Amino acid sequence: MGEFDLIKRYFTRPARQAILGVGDDCALLQPAPGTQLAISCDMLVEGHHFLSMTDPFKLGHKALAVNLSDLAACGAKPLAFTLALALPRADDAWLAPFSQGLFALADAHGCELIGGDTTRGPLNICITVFGEVPVVNGQSKALLRSGAQAGDDLYVSGTLGDARLALEVSRGTVSVPAPVQEAARCRMEQPTPRVALGLALRSIATAAIDVSDGLLGDLGHILQQSGVGATVNTDIAATLVAARAYYTKTSNLSATEISPDQWRDLALAGGDDYELLFTAPVSKRKAVATAALASQTPVTRIGQIDLERGLHLLDAQGQAVPNIYTSFDHFA
Amino acid sequence: MGEFDLIKRYFTRPARQAILGVGDDCALLQPAPGTQLAISCDMLVEGHHFLSMTDPFKLGHKALAVNLSDLAACGAKPLAFTLALALPRADDAWLAPFSQGLFALADAHGCELIGGDTTRGPLNICITVFGEVPVVNGQSKALLRSGAQAGDDLYVSGTLGDARLALEVSRGTVSVPAPVQEAARCRMEQPTPRVALGLALRSIATAAIDVSDGLLGDLGHILQQSGVGATVNTDIAATLVAARAYYTKTSNLSATEISPDQWRDLALAGGDDYELLFTAPVSKRKAVATAALASQTPVTRIGQIDLERGLHLLDAQGQAVPNIYTSFDHFA
Repeated sequence: MGEFDLIKRYFTRPARQAILGVGDDCALLQPAPGTQLAISCDMLVEGHHFLSMTDPFKLGHKALAVNLSDLAACGAKPLAFTLALALPRADDAWLAPFSQGLFALADAHGCELIGGDTTRGPLNICITVFGEVPVVNGQSKALLRSGAQAGDDLYVSGTLGDARLALEVSRGTVSVPAPVQEAARCRMEQPTPRVALGLALRSIATAAIDVSDGLLGDLGHILQQSGVGATVNTDIAATLVAARAYYTKTSNLSATEISPDQWRDLALAGGDDYELLFTAPVSKRKAVATAALASQTPVTRIGQIDLERGLHLLDAQGQAVPNIYTSFDHFA
Repeated sequence: MGEFDLIKRYFTRPARQAILGVGDDCALLQPAPGTQLAISCDMLVEGHHFLSMTDPFKLGHKALAVNLSDLAACGAKPLAFTLALALPRADDAWLAPFSQGLFALADAHGCELIGGDTTRGPLNICITVFGEVPVVNGQSKALLRSGAQAGDDLYVSGTLGDARLALEVSRGTVSVPAPVQEAARCRMEQPTPRVALGLALRSIATAAIDVSDGLLGDLGHILQQSGVGATVNTDIAATLVAARAYYTKTSNLSATEISPDQWRDLALAGGDDYELLFTAPVSKRKAVATAALASQTPVTRIGQIDLERGLHLLDAQGQAVPNIYTSFDHFA
């Protein structure tokens, strides 16, 4: 199978919203009048972001999901994406499920493949995604990292730390019962981009980011770009690890080999969560609850924004918890 | 140096045309009213598209140049780009010249870096580029591959085959004098995207493509998508190898070790030329000449479009030349 056959067989479908899709020198997009285009780009490398034995269907899902998560954090409606793919070989047994996983998620979000590149090389998946953000009365409705205000509530969507738990299990540093392992692996391999929540939070949230490098690391970007500080209740955050809830329900939590400190660590610095971390004024608590309900996405209030810079971690008793967490860094 | 330092030091500059540049979950672009966004994406892999000893300044140039070349082929004005970079390590001695080469070309075209991703992995450079195409009276001014008409002239810009000659010299399959080698290497390492010509050809050319996989291979895409055939004068094409002109000027051409067949092969199937191959009606010959002059880009008429499908190669005497050429294919 040659390069052009490969593109034709797995990655060419008729253009829908786009003026021109796969197959020319460029694709053509015409954003609706009064909108901005939100653009994000993520590169996934074998051996760093995923292992060689990763199920290609799930990998197709994840490669697009991490990009859609950036659109969600911006409050942008997914429109289209390009895919650049370096492959060690043209292998039908890999390409067929990879493209199926990719298109299954793309179709679920009405996000169209409009172009890309295919080449030989160590497996590398680079997706650039395009979304639409309305401009109302000259004001962009995009959610930025820079809008958090002192006094705002701090929220996070969904669950935290389970992807990291799956990684630790696969590394052999911890062991958990089969159903916990399976659920955690699903979170690691097929994260859910919180697109509907991001859209529902337009005009409600003051700042947002998606949690990819760990909750506190990504919170640091909001604090830095907004010029504010924050206080986080670490015990509430720790309850957001889905695996922990499993133990609470099925057995005595203290009977597991995972310590309270480790649950907290997973929640605060696990990484690969692809949840939305966002801020909103106290006056918008009802609106946030409505947005969560409308988007069928649980959100939890985990702290507040402070006028004074700096990050304070408190436990449920209001005692300070030392901040030993750093954000994931590909080159650290 | 960590990931965020690296991005800050080498790849963060204030947004200019873009609403929002590097540093949030998404960048924001707002295309001018009445325009379409042309989007293209190219991935360069070490060991496949370039060698590990390639000068990083020149590599920064080339990585963007091959993308700008796609915009040129579409008649699009460069606006912005994203850069995803997988690096084996964070190395200042590589990153500084790479970013300088990249921004030198970007600035020359007013094309702004608005976002991207940086990660660890085998060296891989993936750029997605955005350009603007006007829509006039509901008609897109984009140059497509599908518009060639029977009777149209067939043109190519600049020179052909020199990048491939440089590759062959580096492989040791042929040797040439030092000045020829130097000039050929420059063409391979720092191709010139024909952006000004692409813009000047709007409303003149009926179809266009950039020559990256070899003249005849890329011509095949125009013929297939336009549903037409073509006749190419191979002897005219062979004169477009710049190295050949050097021999013609400085010495007896027949004294070189490169045969007439080889000059023709270089021109027709060399690859990595990043010239524009385009068609235009015979009635537009003067307009094509004016566009070439205005954009300071030489163009040469090398054949014509035929109603009947199929590709015919003729020499200067009008004798048929067998078509033994196939397009470059990363997986063939």
